[in-house]
Amino acid sequence: MERHFETEMQALKNRLLSMGAMVEERVQHAVLALMERNSATAERIIAGDEEVNELQIEVDDRCLKLLALQQPMASDLRLITAAMKINADLERIGDQAVNIAENSLKLMANAPLKPIIDLPRMAEIAEGMTRDSLDAFVRKDAALARAVLARDDEVDQLKDHIFRVLLTYMMADPGTIERALSLILVSRNLERIADHATNIAEDVIFVVEAKDVRHHHEERMLS
Amino acid sequence: MERHFETEMQALKNRLLSMGAMVEERVQHAVLALMERNSATAERIIAGDEEVNELQIEVDDRCLKLLALQQPMASDLRLITAAMKINADLERIGDQAVNIAENSLKLMANAPLKPIIDLPRMAEIAEGMTRDSLDAFVRKDAALARAVLARDDEVDQLKDHIFRVLLTYMMADPGTIERALSLILVSRNLERIADHATNIAEDVIFVVEAKDVRHHHEERMLS
Repeated sequence: MERHFETEMQALKNRLLSMGAMVEERVQHAVLALMERNSATAERIIAGDEEVNELQIEVDDRCLKLLALQQPMASDLRLITAAMKINADLERIGDQAVNIAENSLKLMANAPLKPIIDLPRMAEIAEGMTRDSLDAFVRKDAALARAVLARDDEVDQLKDHIFRVLLTYMMADPGTIERALSLILVSRNLERIADHATNIAEDVIFVVEAKDVRHHHEERMLS
Repeated sequence: MERHFETEMQALKNRLLSMGAMVEERVQHAVLALMERNSATAERIIAGDEEVNELQIEVDDRCLKLLALQQPMASDLRLITAAMKINADLERIGDQAVNIAENSLKLMANAPLKPIIDLPRMAEIAEGMTRDSLDAFVRKDAALARAVLARDDEVDQLKDHIFRVLLTYMMADPGTIERALSLILVSRNLERIADHATNIAEDVIFVVEAKDVRHHHEERMLS
């Protein structure tokens, strides 16, 4: 029984990693579609969301079965319930990939506004945060999870920078407003991905240290 | 033991309802601060987020204790793990109240752009969705949860309408761009609140019917 439990826990972690890899790739491709003005890629991202949903349901199911299988220890309880929350955050990162793809399609309908430089940088950080928060979960690495929390400020700075630059465009030429707005919305989609990665990192620290950092972290964010 | 479990389950539901009432009130006051240009109210919302965080931690803790207390039945497992997810969604609704309050403060720094009519309507729907999704959870009412899902379309329509109206303002007068952008961002904050309520409603249907509607609902949303 104990051995069976361990095997199942390992399988759960692997599926969660697959889920993470899937949504990370989808974010990457959505941003690529935006950069390369590739509507086929954007359409593919929008159509492929179902696969993410199916994997979410499977992971949730595994978690419920593990909870029902036997009375897990306190640390396993925290791990399994955290996996369910992380699973939900990953699914919502997948939703943001769809939103980015939709905004990209809108942008492709018009001539490019400007070279896009900051959004892919922002995407790279958000994807890295997602990847590291999941690695931190699987390895029970609280230090790595804390490094994810620290990077959220970088994302916020980039978001503010993008906003200011696009505001300048809009002020100078009303003909740019619609495109600038779509780009601002993409930056908000990426911000939400970083938010989800932050949530995952906070869950990891709670699992590892049995200590809730959500409270403290949010105080810092709001200051 | 059984009786103790039932008492604790009831206490959990009550605390979750308190959490819901707290974040709903905070959203309401944040929108009121925007309407009445009341910076003191906005500041109070921003400062008060800590209380929400503390309640989230308490609810999470109750859930973990209930899971550890004894081997809950399959239906109780679904209920308790759903409560943890719902708790996370409520906390993030509280975060959106803070974002609305921050955007309101920005708006107060300048003369009003236009009478604000659609945002409070959107807020009312999003608050109602939050309230009903929680009521549906406590009463195990799948029909009420489905009614919440249906209202998400109304929110999307209002969001699109607000976007179009503000776009017209920006196009006509670049001097309105910054204020129009802040109002658009508030509409996105409210959209996120409706998204969280939708997530809660989906969790409720899963708890009640042991049937996952997330997949089906999202297909519909993306079509």
